[in-house]
Amino acid sequence: RRSYSVTLIPGDGIGPEVVSVARDVLFLVGSHEGIEFRFQEVPMGGTALDAVGVPLPEETLSTAKDSDAVLLGAIGGYKWDSNEKSLKPETGLLQLRAGLGVFANLRPASVFPQLVDSSTLKREVAEGVDIMVVRELTGGIYFGKPRGFGTNESGEEIGFNTEVYSASEVDRIARIAFETARKRGGKLCSVDKANVLEASILWRRRVTMMASEFPDVELSHMYVDNASMQLVRNPKQFDTIVTNNIFGDILSDEASMITGSIGMLPSASLGYSGPGLFEPIHGSAPDIAGQDKANPLATVLSAAMLLRYGLGEEIAAKRIENAVLETLDRGYRTGDIFSTGSTLVGCKRMGEEVLKSV
Amino acid sequence: RRSYSVTLIPGDGIGPEVVSVARDVLFLVGSHEGIEFRFQEVPMGGTALDAVGVPLPEETLSTAKDSDAVLLGAIGGYKWDSNEKSLKPETGLLQLRAGLGVFANLRPASVFPQLVDSSTLKREVAEGVDIMVVRELTGGIYFGKPRGFGTNESGEEIGFNTEVYSASEVDRIARIAFETARKRGGKLCSVDKANVLEASILWRRRVTMMASEFPDVELSHMYVDNASMQLVRNPKQFDTIVTNNIFGDILSDEASMITGSIGMLPSASLGYSGPGLFEPIHGSAPDIAGQDKANPLATVLSAAMLLRYGLGEEIAAKRIENAVLETLDRGYRTGDIFSTGSTLVGCKRMGEEVLKSV
Ligand SMILES: CC(C)[C@H](C(=O)O)[C@@H](O)C(=O)O
Ligand SMILES: CC(C)[C@H](C(=O)O)[C@@H](O)C(=O)O
Repeated sequence: RRSYSVTLIPGDGIGPEVVSVARDVLFLVGSHEGIEFRFQEVPMGGTALDAVGVPLPEETLSTAKDSDAVLLGAIGGYKWDSNEKSLKPETGLLQLRAGLGVFANLRPASVFPQLVDSSTLKREVAEGVDIMVVRELTGGIYFGKPRGFGTNESGEEIGFNTEVYSASEVDRIARIAFETARKRGGKLCSVDKANVLEASILWRRRVTMMASEFPDVELSHMYVDNASMQLVRNPKQFDTIVTNNIFGDILSDEASMITGSIGMLPSASLGYSGPGLFEPIHGSAPDIAGQDKANPLATVLSAAMLLRYGLGEEIAAKRIENAVLETLDRGYRTGDIFSTGSTLVGCKRMGEEVLKSV
Repeated sequence: RRSYSVTLIPGDGIGPEVVSVARDVLFLVGSHEGIEFRFQEVPMGGTALDAVGVPLPEETLSTAKDSDAVLLGAIGGYKWDSNEKSLKPETGLLQLRAGLGVFANLRPASVFPQLVDSSTLKREVAEGVDIMVVRELTGGIYFGKPRGFGTNESGEEIGFNTEVYSASEVDRIARIAFETARKRGGKLCSVDKANVLEASILWRRRVTMMASEFPDVELSHMYVDNASMQLVRNPKQFDTIVTNNIFGDILSDEASMITGSIGMLPSASLGYSGPGLFEPIHGSAPDIAGQDKANPLATVLSAAMLLRYGLGEEIAAKRIENAVLETLDRGYRTGDIFSTGSTLVGCKRMGEEVLKSV
């Protein structure tokens, strides 16, 4: 009987509702597959700010570090939006990513055949889209120094940040991207702005150098402005995309919206060793929090990624993914993916239906 | 008889073909409206690199500065893609923007009723989209210092750039954006990443401060990752968008692809005084260069923006825009916007048809 400790961070808004569903699913799959989970729940984000005055309490980070994997709901909300930077919920998330050293963020953007009509793109454009965005997560302009506020020569106030990458930072994310592409369609597109930025020139050079180690992967390069167009024009041209932290933030959200079902999309953030961080890509949706309206499937699928990438439990991961597909096939839909002819359910009920299919 | 000097920069790839059409259109409209144009043609980009070894010859910049407006085709091509940074065609364009001080880049992304089906978005999502992206063009990470290559504490190679904005840089672009929004739908959405970047926090603060001067404009703020999703989800929610140089690069290209007719979209880059720079948003398309296949309408519409924003010749501007719409109504299409039932024509012929409608 394998036993794992999993840190649960429900967070803010709809976070607690969706994490609770995913926890039940993990528990049931575990009982079928002979896996024991020990869950610890810890605060982060706005909830932590309200309780103890910081967005990432030390104990939350140490609990997370000592566990085998971390499952996060969502953080943030209007209430804390005008907090100063060190007291923003988002700062807690950035500190957690840095603290866990999870530099590789895997964000699948796949169209579910059952939900292709939720996309705003024409059926023939959206159908079959299956993209994996590999986003660098602990470097670049999110963390680069110097940063802050100051005054320029004219005595005027300025705000500044530094986009910086080192060779080894690019190498390690590029390696994961090549390995990911090799296991998928064998095509890797590296996105940068090498016609303008030195940080991108280094990025492109290092990615290109690594290509010789992966002769079976077809590497291409694309400027970020073009990539944002091509995702709309013909998303099917992409298999695996690798890019920096800020471009990855923008493009992975664009790609996920193209699938039409952002409430369905999970993510995994991985380091070299230590626990991975798994979270839905949607936000905390404060407007529908506590109303049993949230779609828990992105978090349930994040739990599947947790099993696959975090714990190496492929069979259990597939079992969850199949249960989600079967639940969709049986016609259950939360409001965000509802269409006529299907059965509208709330967050809890959706969870119960997934449990039946597990 | 008003008389203006207009600098023409045909540039690379399809640039010369489309600029030649736009020049003829300007000439004819001028003769109808009693406007005389003196055209000077100067090299930039790859063409200049090949001819004199630099992407922006001094004479090109000084000719441009001394004229009343600058019309640019497109620059760049595979041939110069691996040049070092100072010898890239793109560097010439950046130097021209900086040299002319054109800090405000206006990029309309409007769906032409005749072309709504060219969009990959569903008809009901694309129909009626009419967005103006106001992009800051001479600041931010494109120009911020320090920048370059170096080594970090571990002796590893790094590449770095600086995202920086001063209060007055934000103020001047915000003012143009508010004024633009006031003349349009009265809604301004400022896009930033203020939950992570100090440069964005300053940006948001200054934009917010200016709102009191424009009580008739409804201001909202959006994070850039969300904006890239919302453009796909429901582009009609946007009227005017204001954002920094790099986010504007990405989002304006995404917005233009949503219209489905990137070969139709013009842009204007304006400073406080001195000539504005007008160019189609599409690239140099080296693969179809010299084959009489390019769509000249984006450049023709850039000439209309030149008349409106550069020379204050509103009547002549409208005359060009109406001629383009009429030509579309008469069914003429270049390959990029072709659909069954319409008449496929080349670049030159499309130009002739516009001339007939002028
Ligand atoms: C909340 C925010 C700091 C975060 C980011 O920008 O990384 C989010 O947008 C994401 O993509 O996970
Ligand atoms: C060619 C390149 C330097 C340029 C930019 O990034 O500004 C282009 O993409 C644009 O948007 O005009």
